[in-house]
Amino acid sequence: MDNQRHIVVLGAGFGGLTFCQTFHHSTARVTIVDRQNHHLFQPLLYQVASAGLAAPDIAQAIRSILTGEKDVTVLMDDVVDVNLSTKLVTLGKETLHYDYLVLGLGGVTSYFGHPEWEQFAPGLKSLDDAIRIRRKILLAFEKAEREMDVQQREKLLTIVVVGGGPTGVELAGAFAELRRYVLAKDFDHIDPAKARVILIEASPRVLSHLSEYLSELTEKTLTKLGVELMVNTRVKDITAGCVELQTGEKILAENIVWAAGVGASPITKKLGVELDKAGRVKVNPDLSLPNHPEVFAIGDMALVLDKEGKAVPGVSPAAMQMARHVAGIIYDELEFPARKRRPFKYWDKGTMATIGRSAAVAQIKKLEFNGFLAWIAWLVIHLFFLVGFRNKISVLWQWAYSYFTYKRGARIITGIHEQDATRDLGNLV
Amino acid sequence: MDNQRHIVVLGAGFGGLTFCQTFHHSTARVTIVDRQNHHLFQPLLYQVASAGLAAPDIAQAIRSILTGEKDVTVLMDDVVDVNLSTKLVTLGKETLHYDYLVLGLGGVTSYFGHPEWEQFAPGLKSLDDAIRIRRKILLAFEKAEREMDVQQREKLLTIVVVGGGPTGVELAGAFAELRRYVLAKDFDHIDPAKARVILIEASPRVLSHLSEYLSELTEKTLTKLGVELMVNTRVKDITAGCVELQTGEKILAENIVWAAGVGASPITKKLGVELDKAGRVKVNPDLSLPNHPEVFAIGDMALVLDKEGKAVPGVSPAAMQMARHVAGIIYDELEFPARKRRPFKYWDKGTMATIGRSAAVAQIKKLEFNGFLAWIAWLVIHLFFLVGFRNKISVLWQWAYSYFTYKRGARIITGIHEQDATRDLGNLV
Repeated sequence: MDNQRHIVVLGAGFGGLTFCQTFHHSTARVTIVDRQNHHLFQPLLYQVASAGLAAPDIAQAIRSILTGEKDVTVLMDDVVDVNLSTKLVTLGKETLHYDYLVLGLGGVTSYFGHPEWEQFAPGLKSLDDAIRIRRKILLAFEKAEREMDVQQREKLLTIVVVGGGPTGVELAGAFAELRRYVLAKDFDHIDPAKARVILIEASPRVLSHLSEYLSELTEKTLTKLGVELMVNTRVKDITAGCVELQTGEKILAENIVWAAGVGASPITKKLGVELDKAGRVKVNPDLSLPNHPEVFAIGDMALVLDKEGKAVPGVSPAAMQMARHVAGIIYDELEFPARKRRPFKYWDKGTMATIGRSAAVAQIKKLEFNGFLAWIAWLVIHLFFLVGFRNKISVLWQWAYSYFTYKRGARIITGIHEQDATRDLGNLV
Repeated sequence: MDNQRHIVVLGAGFGGLTFCQTFHHSTARVTIVDRQNHHLFQPLLYQVASAGLAAPDIAQAIRSILTGEKDVTVLMDDVVDVNLSTKLVTLGKETLHYDYLVLGLGGVTSYFGHPEWEQFAPGLKSLDDAIRIRRKILLAFEKAEREMDVQQREKLLTIVVVGGGPTGVELAGAFAELRRYVLAKDFDHIDPAKARVILIEASPRVLSHLSEYLSELTEKTLTKLGVELMVNTRVKDITAGCVELQTGEKILAENIVWAAGVGASPITKKLGVELDKAGRVKVNPDLSLPNHPEVFAIGDMALVLDKEGKAVPGVSPAAMQMARHVAGIIYDELEFPARKRRPFKYWDKGTMATIGRSAAVAQIKKLEFNGFLAWIAWLVIHLFFLVGFRNKISVLWQWAYSYFTYKRGARIITGIHEQDATRDLGNLV
C-alpha cells in the first residue's frame, strides 16, 4: 500500500462528513479528525439551549456515521498546527502527513476583538455551550423564585441576546416561549411570563440577509412574543451580568448570550495565506488554497465568492456542496490526471429561520414564505437533514409533544456538581 | 391562613413526589425541597451511563410534574440540617418551620468506610454520575485506539464493576453489549469486542436477593455476554485505575464503577435518633420517628421491618407505598384527630433485573420468570412507572431502535471542556 495517497480531513461537520461519504478511490485512504466524538447538527443547537431537545437528539457518533466507510479512519484529537510546506498536520497525540488536505473545521464565536466578553456572554457552538446556557437560564428562574431583592430579581429574570441573525432570532423566540408557555405556571413568587427577553442588533433590522418585508414580519412576530427589540443598537462593553450600550445605557441581565459574530477556526491564522476579516481563507475558484492545489478549504472556513461577487453564506448546504466538489476534484485527479479542475458553483437553496410556534420565514431566491407554511417547511427540511433515523424520529416526537402540551422535555439542570470533567480527558486532547 | 399546617417534604424521589400527589387537605400546605430541579427515574440510570438513553429521557422537572398541585411549593435547595426539637429545617438559602416533616432524601453511594475510593470508582446515583461514566468509558475506547503500549491499551479496555446487585448486573450487561455490539466495528486498531468487563461480588452469588436458580441463570447469561464473573471476591483497595483484591491480585482498569453499597442520606446522622449500619432511620410501625410522631422517614432512608422481620427493600414501589401511608396518616390526623394510626404494611410486588438483550430475571413471591418473557415484563413495567408521557414514548423509541439496529443513541461525549459549571450555581445551593 506504499503508493496509497493519504487524504486528511479536518473537522467532522457537514463538510468533512459529506466528503468522507462521497469520496472513494482505490488508491487513497482518508483520515478524518475532530476534537469531539460526535457530529453536531448545529441548526438545532438553539433548541438544546432552550430546553426543547436533549443533546443526543442532535448529535451522532462520528464512528457510527462512518462505520460503513472502510477506507476512512476516525481520530478524536485536537488540531494543533498545519504546515503547508512540509504537508504535516500536528495533532495533540500524533502528526499526520497528507497528500491532500481538506480543511473543514468550521467557525468559532467571534467577539470582534473583545475576547474578554466570552466569559460573560457565551456563544453557541457546541453541545457543552448549549447545556451550559440551558443550565444557567433554568437556574436563574430558580434563583429569582427565592430572591427578595426586587432589583436583583429583575436582573435574574432578564435575558439578553446579542445579534439579530438567524441564531439570535431563533434563540430569542425560543426563550420568549420558554418563559411564557413552559415555565409560566410553575412558580409561586415570580411570574416567569414577565421575564424580559431583549434582542440587540447593531444594524437597522434583524435577519438582514433576507428581504425587508421578511425582516419586518420577523420583528412583528418577535414583538408579539414579548421580545424587546433593539435595532440600530451597538454594544460598548459586556461585564458580569451587564451589557453596556454605545449610548451609555446599562442593561442588567443574569443571562447574556452572544450570537453576533462567527469567525473561522483560528487554525487559519497558522496557514500563512490570505484571510478575510472573519479569518476565512480566500480560496481559488476550485476551493484550493493559492499556491497549494493539494489543500482545500470548505464550509465556514472558506471565503468563496459566487458569480455576483457575494460571499457564499456559512450554511450547511454550502458546506456539503463544497465537500462534494472537492471530492470530485480529487477523484478526477487520481483517475484522469490530465483533466482540468472545474470551479465551484454554489446552488443557493434559500434560507430560513424559525421564530416560534407556527412562525417562520423563508426566502428561496425571489420566492418568500412566512407563517405556518414556512414553519412546516422549516420542520420538514431540518428533519430531513438531521443525521440519523433515530434522531429524526426522536426530534419529531419531542416537537409534536411540545407543540400540543406546551411543555419542554429537556427542562433539566445537569452539571452543577461536575468539576472533574477535564480530568477524565487525561492526555487525549 | 394562620392556622394552616405546614408539611415539609425533603426529597423529590418516588416517595416525596408520591406524597405531594396524594396528600391534600384544606388546612395544610406542602413544601417540597430537592437539590436538583428534576425527579430522576433511577432504575434506568444505568442506561444513561451506558449510552443507551439521553439524560432528559429519564428525568422530569419537579415543577412540571407538580404544576397542578396548587397547595405545593417547590424549592430547589440543599438540606443542611434538621432540628427535631425546634422543628426547623435549615436549607442553603432559608430555614423552614414544619408541623409535619417527611424525610425522603433517598440514599447515597457508600464505600464501607473508604470514602477515598469514590474518586477512582464513581457510584451511580445522579445524572451527572451517569454522564461522567459514559464520558469516561467512551473516551477510554478513543484513547485505546491511539495507544501503542500494549499493557496500557489493555488497561484502557478494561471495565470493572464492583457489586453484583441489580445495578451492578445491569451495568455489567450493558457495558458488555456496548463493546460487543455497538462499538465492535467502528475502530481500526483495537477490537472493542475484546474489551474486558469484570463483575466483582463479595458474596457467593450475584443478585443474592433472588433465588439461587435465578442467580445461576443470571450468571450464565452474563458469562455468555463475555462478562468475567468474580464471586466470593472482596476488594481490599482501590487506587487510580487499579482494583486490589483481598488475595493481593491487582486488576488494572481505566474504568471502575462502584455498585456495591448504598447508604442513607447522611442527613440522618444529624437527627439524633437510632440508625442501622447503613445509616437508615429505625422507624415506628407507622413510619414515624421514635418520640417524634410528626416526623416520618420513607423510602431508602427508612429501616422498615415487614412481618417476617425482614427489612423492606430500597425499591421505588416501597417508597411510593410508604408515601401513601404517611399521606393517609397525616390526612386522618387533620380530619379525624381521634383516629389511631395504622401500621405500614409492605406489599411486595416482586423484584427484577435485566441482563441484556431479551434477557431478564424476575421473582414475584414464589413465582419465577426469566428470559424473553421476563425481559418484556421488565420493559413494560419500567415504561409504566417512568414519569411523563413524553419520556415513555421517547424511551420506547430508543429501545426499539437499539434492539433492531444494535446502535445506541446517546453515544456522545459531552462536558470535556466544561470547567465552570459550578460557577453558574452562584449562591443558590
